[in-house]
Amino acid sequence: MLENALHYSHTLLKNTLIPGDIVIDATIGSGNDTVLLATLVGNTGKVYGFDLQEEAIKKTKEKLLLTGLADQVVLFQQGHETLSSVLPKNTLLAGAVFNLGYLPKGDKTIITKAETTLIAIKEILPRLRKGGLLLLVVYYGHEGGKEEKKSVLNYVQTLSQTDYTVLRYDFLNQKNNPPLLIAIEKNKEMTA
Amino acid sequence: MLENALHYSHTLLKNTLIPGDIVIDATIGSGNDTVLLATLVGNTGKVYGFDLQEEAIKKTKEKLLLTGLADQVVLFQQGHETLSSVLPKNTLLAGAVFNLGYLPKGDKTIITKAETTLIAIKEILPRLRKGGLLLLVVYYGHEGGKEEKKSVLNYVQTLSQTDYTVLRYDFLNQKNNPPLLIAIEKNKEMTA
Repeated sequence: MLENALHYSHTLLKNTLIPGDIVIDATIGSGNDTVLLATLVGNTGKVYGFDLQEEAIKKTKEKLLLTGLADQVVLFQQGHETLSSVLPKNTLLAGAVFNLGYLPKGDKTIITKAETTLIAIKEILPRLRKGGLLLLVVYYGHEGGKEEKKSVLNYVQTLSQTDYTVLRYDFLNQKNNPPLLIAIEKNKEMTA
Repeated sequence: MLENALHYSHTLLKNTLIPGDIVIDATIGSGNDTVLLATLVGNTGKVYGFDLQEEAIKKTKEKLLLTGLADQVVLFQQGHETLSSVLPKNTLLAGAVFNLGYLPKGDKTIITKAETTLIAIKEILPRLRKGGLLLLVVYYGHEGGKEEKKSVLNYVQTLSQTDYTVLRYDFLNQKNNPPLLIAIEKNKEMTA
């Protein structure tokens, strides 16, 4: 059965991440991706999570404590565009995930925005290891969603084919705006 | 590592087909897909293969004999748009694959064409079982390729969301026109 965009992003993470990896959850939201990432990188790895909303941080902390995964996760209540202010220097990332749009079941007026999303993407890409993945699950059914989707698509098309492979995984006959996945893979070693 | 369109089509086939299934190789070409399909459906299944070119039929027959898979394959030297003339009545298909464009290393003036491709797609879709897949790996770097790609994309977007799920899997930052994959999944049982 064809996987939806969110499920396929999880399949890619499971195929790519190994224990000890360092990854970013750029949009913690309900914390489901955080838990998956923390499971995959194990207690020798590290997940850095970002979210503006106190509620997201609080609920995710609870989930991590309940699942025994809290030790390998650091959560920051700040926007992902500020990640370079807290990420340890020379951190080599194996992956990063974004869920663009709003927090499901949360306040639909609090949405990610193209400007800050692009800042965060540009901070992460140079830090990816060879084979590392930056995944964007793009929800765009809300107001402003189509503009953010367009900005992100325009940007990723400009990435050098030598340095990155950019996959689009989306559905062509769905009227209800299901999310699309953009997966960016780093093709070569990071150069300082 | 992100799979290219051809590899991902094979992953989908491996995840979907089971021994005993009946499938179509709509463009035999070099016979690689035919061998994969015959392996997956096993000696209780059946592969119906189509190609206009004598060379494709001949080389594929050799491959099937060498791999011990010839018994479960029937090859037709005729265009895929004629498949309904040879397919047994009420055949329930688990899958069908198309490689659109030209035969790699073959005569580049012999190409698939939108008109006959669409006829074949429309013959196959109603015959798919629930969960069955029609896969199109679309090469479009040759003359006429972009037109065929556009025709196929336009058509699949019109398919009912209730009956079919249409996935697009392609690459956004590649300058050399790598193939894209369109995967169509049947969502419900065939009704006669």
